[in-house]
Amino acid sequence: MARHIYRHPEAFALSGGGVIKNLEICYDTYGTLSPEGDNVVWVCHALTADSAVDDWWPHTVEAGAFLDPDRYFTVCANVIGSCYGTTGPLHINPATGRPWYGIFPAVSIADMARAHELLADALGIKRIRALVGSSVGGFQAIEWAVQHPLRFDSLVLIATAPVATPWAIAIDETQRMAIRADATFGTDSPDAGAAGLEAARALGLLTYRGPAGYNLTQQDHHDSTEHRACTYQRHQGAKLRKRFNAYSYVSLLDAFDTHDIGRGRGGMQQALSTLTMPVLTVGISTDLVFLPDEVRAIAEGTPAGRYAQIDSPFGHDGFLVEHRQLNDIIKPFIDNL
Amino acid sequence: MARHIYRHPEAFALSGGGVIKNLEICYDTYGTLSPEGDNVVWVCHALTADSAVDDWWPHTVEAGAFLDPDRYFTVCANVIGSCYGTTGPLHINPATGRPWYGIFPAVSIADMARAHELLADALGIKRIRALVGSSVGGFQAIEWAVQHPLRFDSLVLIATAPVATPWAIAIDETQRMAIRADATFGTDSPDAGAAGLEAARALGLLTYRGPAGYNLTQQDHHDSTEHRACTYQRHQGAKLRKRFNAYSYVSLLDAFDTHDIGRGRGGMQQALSTLTMPVLTVGISTDLVFLPDEVRAIAEGTPAGRYAQIDSPFGHDGFLVEHRQLNDIIKPFIDNL
Repeated sequence: MARHIYRHPEAFALSGGGVIKNLEICYDTYGTLSPEGDNVVWVCHALTADSAVDDWWPHTVEAGAFLDPDRYFTVCANVIGSCYGTTGPLHINPATGRPWYGIFPAVSIADMARAHELLADALGIKRIRALVGSSVGGFQAIEWAVQHPLRFDSLVLIATAPVATPWAIAIDETQRMAIRADATFGTDSPDAGAAGLEAARALGLLTYRGPAGYNLTQQDHHDSTEHRACTYQRHQGAKLRKRFNAYSYVSLLDAFDTHDIGRGRGGMQQALSTLTMPVLTVGISTDLVFLPDEVRAIAEGTPAGRYAQIDSPFGHDGFLVEHRQLNDIIKPFIDNL
Repeated sequence: MARHIYRHPEAFALSGGGVIKNLEICYDTYGTLSPEGDNVVWVCHALTADSAVDDWWPHTVEAGAFLDPDRYFTVCANVIGSCYGTTGPLHINPATGRPWYGIFPAVSIADMARAHELLADALGIKRIRALVGSSVGGFQAIEWAVQHPLRFDSLVLIATAPVATPWAIAIDETQRMAIRADATFGTDSPDAGAAGLEAARALGLLTYRGPAGYNLTQQDHHDSTEHRACTYQRHQGAKLRKRFNAYSYVSLLDAFDTHDIGRGRGGMQQALSTLTMPVLTVGISTDLVFLPDEVRAIAEGTPAGRYAQIDSPFGHDGFLVEHRQLNDIIKPFIDNL
């Protein structure tokens, strides 16, 4: 992998009214661009991931997998608002010379897609063979594809949706409530809201994993002095706190809630109908956040859509766990375009 | 309804090691005890409910319903640790003369069942025609039935479980994390942890209602300035904060996690096999907390068990919403014993 920073030379206006004067986009690439420029796979990452696809998506960037670096030139960019290199709340606000923290401007999924478009142009990438997004990565992918359908030869949407549902938004709002319950949130510190962030993450995990996931992996041992499910939740909360930031987390949740490919475009069905390239959508049998039927409906709404399903007890997290099933579905789709 | 307080004349030892010297049990009764004493239906309430069954369980205590007050003498007692009359964290700790708050002793589901047993004895109730519990009420019911199987002519268990699963415990721990993220939790005040309690309740509601429940009822209107799902979560959080207490809430969550009818009894299957009375279990098709298959397994594990299912899009909350289906299932069962 090779990590880079793209510094955009112009001010970047956000759809919510804010402006980022010094936008930086952190991205990773894997493999080599072919002379014909026909081997680009662009991956959009999920909520708390980063541009290092090989790090958060096991067994995808490797020989024989759908992001095989000997065959494809894979690009992944960290999203605006995150804390992994691209401009976000911990970056310096040029107006004050201090980090943005709680006053980082509102970002939308459409803004994230426009940032990807800027980066693709800056890299001289004209065509993208496959645009791949899972979860919130799928939000960016489908939004970007609707913004610029001619750029993409195909679209791969995994465990995602064309619009943030009331259910998903309720999950986000509850995470924000947990973060705001921590009165340190709002203060000018990188640790602000840390305890709330832990609770929010633990809640996120419940929805990502679901009943079978917990009941399979967190049964108490005979000698447990405390329920394993309890220590697991706290451990996962603490793990995210160490690697993430509450302002970034809320910025990304807020962006999540803006997602609606049909807004201003005559509705969702109309927007889907403009995606005439081959579209592969992949649902997960036990996904509680993006229900299989909703993922199937994306394929059914596009002219050349196809739906495939992963069987997994691990809920939404199945897209990170079931790499064999995922490769078996996605690799032939991208290889044989 | 008639509300009463039973004051236990002796110290009540809790299974966690604590002692309540002045246990008070608040209970309601509906209808009249028959001369033969054969018309008692005992209802155990769920997490944040109270002894007023007609209040929290619509259309059950009425003519023609399964708790018809012209036919049955219904008793419901508030549980230890709650804040609706029975001794809990807001009661006075006799050792200090001040409310218990955060040092209220640990309560188990088994303790709650033993308190019901004390009250039944104090009321001179020998036989209970039907012991009915939904959700955490079902925890108390099945535990009490295992403690004293000969007292009960039948058992009705709705959307509940014989043991707290890792999944359910993870939900509880995440709610506790949200409450603890509010640094006011732990202070000696009835408002301690209020913001955390709001977030915890909002999280609870996600799991009680599930995707279909939210997507059916919380779609945005065209003129929504904020997502309805967001205002709904905050509204529901604030509503519980006004009527409940964070110390009581955590006390009840902790009790929830102790539930295991098999502990010290040779395992769950062994415990279930001792329930030789007719047992009706009722699952809800979309329940995310107590999965229909788990509720069915209770019936299958008892010698005279029967399973019925409610079809509802409202998840676990279906037991509060689908009173018609519930009456159609439960009334003939209790009437025709």
